[in-house]
Amino acid sequence: MICYGLCVAQKATHAIGWCDKMDIAKEVLNGSRLALSRAITAVENEHDDAVDIMRKLYPHTGRAFVLGITGPPGAGKSTLTDKLAKEFRRRGKTVGIVAVDPTSPFSGGAILGDRIRMNELTLDEGVFIRSMGTRGSLGGLSRKTAETVKIMDAFGKDIIFIETVGVGQSEVDIVSAADTTLVVLVPGLGDDIQAIKAGILEIGDVFAINKADREGADKLNIELNMMLDLDGNKNKEWRPPIKQTVAHQNEGVIELLETLEEHYEQLKSTGQLTTRRTERTKNELLNILKNEIGNYVLGKITESGQFDKLVKDVEGRIDDPYSVVNTIIKDMLK
Amino acid sequence: MICYGLCVAQKATHAIGWCDKMDIAKEVLNGSRLALSRAITAVENEHDDAVDIMRKLYPHTGRAFVLGITGPPGAGKSTLTDKLAKEFRRRGKTVGIVAVDPTSPFSGGAILGDRIRMNELTLDEGVFIRSMGTRGSLGGLSRKTAETVKIMDAFGKDIIFIETVGVGQSEVDIVSAADTTLVVLVPGLGDDIQAIKAGILEIGDVFAINKADREGADKLNIELNMMLDLDGNKNKEWRPPIKQTVAHQNEGVIELLETLEEHYEQLKSTGQLTTRRTERTKNELLNILKNEIGNYVLGKITESGQFDKLVKDVEGRIDDPYSVVNTIIKDMLK
Repeated sequence: MICYGLCVAQKATHAIGWCDKMDIAKEVLNGSRLALSRAITAVENEHDDAVDIMRKLYPHTGRAFVLGITGPPGAGKSTLTDKLAKEFRRRGKTVGIVAVDPTSPFSGGAILGDRIRMNELTLDEGVFIRSMGTRGSLGGLSRKTAETVKIMDAFGKDIIFIETVGVGQSEVDIVSAADTTLVVLVPGLGDDIQAIKAGILEIGDVFAINKADREGADKLNIELNMMLDLDGNKNKEWRPPIKQTVAHQNEGVIELLETLEEHYEQLKSTGQLTTRRTERTKNELLNILKNEIGNYVLGKITESGQFDKLVKDVEGRIDDPYSVVNTIIKDMLK
Repeated sequence: MICYGLCVAQKATHAIGWCDKMDIAKEVLNGSRLALSRAITAVENEHDDAVDIMRKLYPHTGRAFVLGITGPPGAGKSTLTDKLAKEFRRRGKTVGIVAVDPTSPFSGGAILGDRIRMNELTLDEGVFIRSMGTRGSLGGLSRKTAETVKIMDAFGKDIIFIETVGVGQSEVDIVSAADTTLVVLVPGLGDDIQAIKAGILEIGDVFAINKADREGADKLNIELNMMLDLDGNKNKEWRPPIKQTVAHQNEGVIELLETLEEHYEQLKSTGQLTTRRTERTKNELLNILKNEIGNYVLGKITESGQFDKLVKDVEGRIDDPYSVVNTIIKDMLK
């Protein structure tokens, strides 16, 4: 493993092929944090090794409790994640945190900044934290998040947090890799009801009203309860509970953690965990399929010089993109 | 065209296949606003007709000046878009506006809300406004935005605005369909320099400091200028100008519009417009290719029942997703 570092530092070593023999996946399974970090980097940068690493790690996944945490900026998700992580640690669990920011660079630094402030946790060997940014496409981001979770899972983390800003479609895609999703809300968001309406009810298994010592917490609680009742949750096996927390004072954190675990137990006992994971496997397969097949076909047509010609035809309005793609598909597929 | 509406309203009519003969693309080219609206809906909902419509419209595209507008929430992008649109109208140009919100549903209603308030513009027959939400994947959203622009272009709009919230990767993808990109900033965003750093310099062809009557406008102007100088713009043919505006008072709007047109003229005269559009065509082809080929292959393996079996194998850790995808690719491609 250390060799891999050398390869990056000393290109010459790499040239003689010595490094290629090192096995990052094996080192991850052996518990090397350095290997863990490098495996994630390989996935993040779409390194040539990434698929091979993932392939080797995959059989060792499926054991961790994956916890998605989302909510609007400023709701205190990072603080809540940290407090929950500490409580899990106190209970003897190892923790991985994937902090994903799919939103604007305008708020892009926030997660990383929060993390840097969070010294206590980062000094704990039982915690591994990784921030993921918005390099590359968003579709890529949710795939890479899911793969990072798998790497941490194979490494042996008991609890893996996926923390993401907002609850837009991209965040929904990102937390879809979680078993249980916690939506963190905060009083004083403005038009709360409006905000809550839009797609958030469906993804929350548990809700936390954080900064619950602020004005408006009770009002938000009532409104949220009403909306959950309206949402037809009566027919479901699990009615999302709403917990009040003041994360920075560690208030309500234990209760929240126990509610999250309760949801996980319920998922297991009702067989829903299997259903959810099957759904997830399907989506992951689809994403990988689209990505790989797209790259494969693109590689072929680029190599042959066909792609540049097609681009010219489309540009000159000799052909349209849809017909061109059709032709490629017909040419390449059986 | 009216028939298509009937089809939706009266399923029975559709059953006899009468409606299928109507040609939305032709009606778009004939200037029907109803057809324009329905063509966009077809693209948005990935209706079966969408590809056919796009194929027919494609030869009639490439004429419009496509203007991307992005910036943080609250910068006043909608107001500025409206004022610019009105000024373009005064100059005899027809206008299309695609308002895209790829961010959280927490702010999701904003664009539409702004649009509803904007009565004056919507009453103008020369303006066509369409909001696009976050249904479906974000990759899908940028593709659909680009297609909506093409539909408006084929319809005959002279100026097409793509207005989007934030400047994250998803927004960069979305405005990548534009010829000229305007980044709207506003004083008092907090740590301005920090905010500006992250990826925004590269995409702005023109910058507007809106709400320039607010405290901090001059400071922002100085900082932005410094950053543009640091960015190595000296070597470029175009140094992004910074314009100050107070959109709601219509201040600085004409100057901004003229700067935007100047950039467009510069793109044309230096041949950069062609370069940019070629790049765009390439990316669009790639997106369509990945999407279509993914759907095609998925259709095949779902049909044969192969997909469900593969999902089970992956779930049971008998196989891993990467090997499975590899097998599919080998099976399906020539």
